[in-house]
Amino acid sequence: MRDQDETFMREALDMARQGIELGHGGPFGAVLVRQGRVIGRGWNQVIHLNDPTAHAEMQAIREACRTLADYHLPGAVLYTTCEPCPMCLSAAYWAHIQRLVYAAEAGDAAAIGFSDREIMLELDRPSAERSIAVKQLLRDDSLALFARWEKSDKRIDY
Amino acid sequence: MRDQDETFMREALDMARQGIELGHGGPFGAVLVRQGRVIGRGWNQVIHLNDPTAHAEMQAIREACRTLADYHLPGAVLYTTCEPCPMCLSAAYWAHIQRLVYAAEAGDAAAIGFSDREIMLELDRPSAERSIAVKQLLRDDSLALFARWEKSDKRIDY
Repeated sequence: MRDQDETFMREALDMARQGIELGHGGPFGAVLVRQGRVIGRGWNQVIHLNDPTAHAEMQAIREACRTLADYHLPGAVLYTTCEPCPMCLSAAYWAHIQRLVYAAEAGDAAAIGFSDREIMLELDRPSAERSIAVKQLLRDDSLALFARWEKSDKRIDY
Repeated sequence: MRDQDETFMREALDMARQGIELGHGGPFGAVLVRQGRVIGRGWNQVIHLNDPTAHAEMQAIREACRTLADYHLPGAVLYTTCEPCPMCLSAAYWAHIQRLVYAAEAGDAAAIGFSDREIMLELDRPSAERSIAVKQLLRDDSLALFARWEKSDKRIDY
């Protein structure tokens, strides 16, 4: 797999390079591949799109899902020029991605000012100790909707 | 804040109800509020949009950022009918959201088949022990792009 992995990582690096040249956001790129074919590409567009979720990996996942008209990508490999932040890694799980190949590390991103690692540490803390204050409210009302959804004939499990 | 929190959580519950009736995805809704005004709404549309990232909170964050033409939402409060999954919670950090109010708990979502909690456990594991296999490749090539970005006149820190 070595040659193929290198080939696709170089495509992800091209995506990052494009994003830098366009000034769209951070220096990150990603490519999604299944059965040797690119099914999604992305670069960080947080600034360009005014979308804090528009990380390279998210863009690649969303593009692949849109193109393939599926919300799951079993067998897909995600090539990303930097270790995914917890948002993107979680999205990879939700998308049922099989394998992940990355280049730079979370610590490298931290060194140029990105807070991926801080967010991972925040997630590790009990919610009462996080910097975003939390409060719970109306749990029973939400559970009543869960029950309604469970009985719905429009329900699709995913 | 109690009355206002209840009012906005009921709006989030309305979003969830709408999503269930439309069959768009899981039974989850969210509302984003700043200075007493709703700036974004969302319901789970994973199935409808074929987008595994289209959770209620993500939709609300993306809508608010699009409307306000900003990738940060300081002072915003996120009302969500279920404790956010790690993807959505990370997105809340990236968006600089200040406060979080939720109704049902991650365990409640697990009870109706959603894997929020499993994903949180996966993130806690060292990458070599996660179910998504990982490999590192071409780190230096990515670091070279980081350096290029740091010197770019198009660079915007966020």
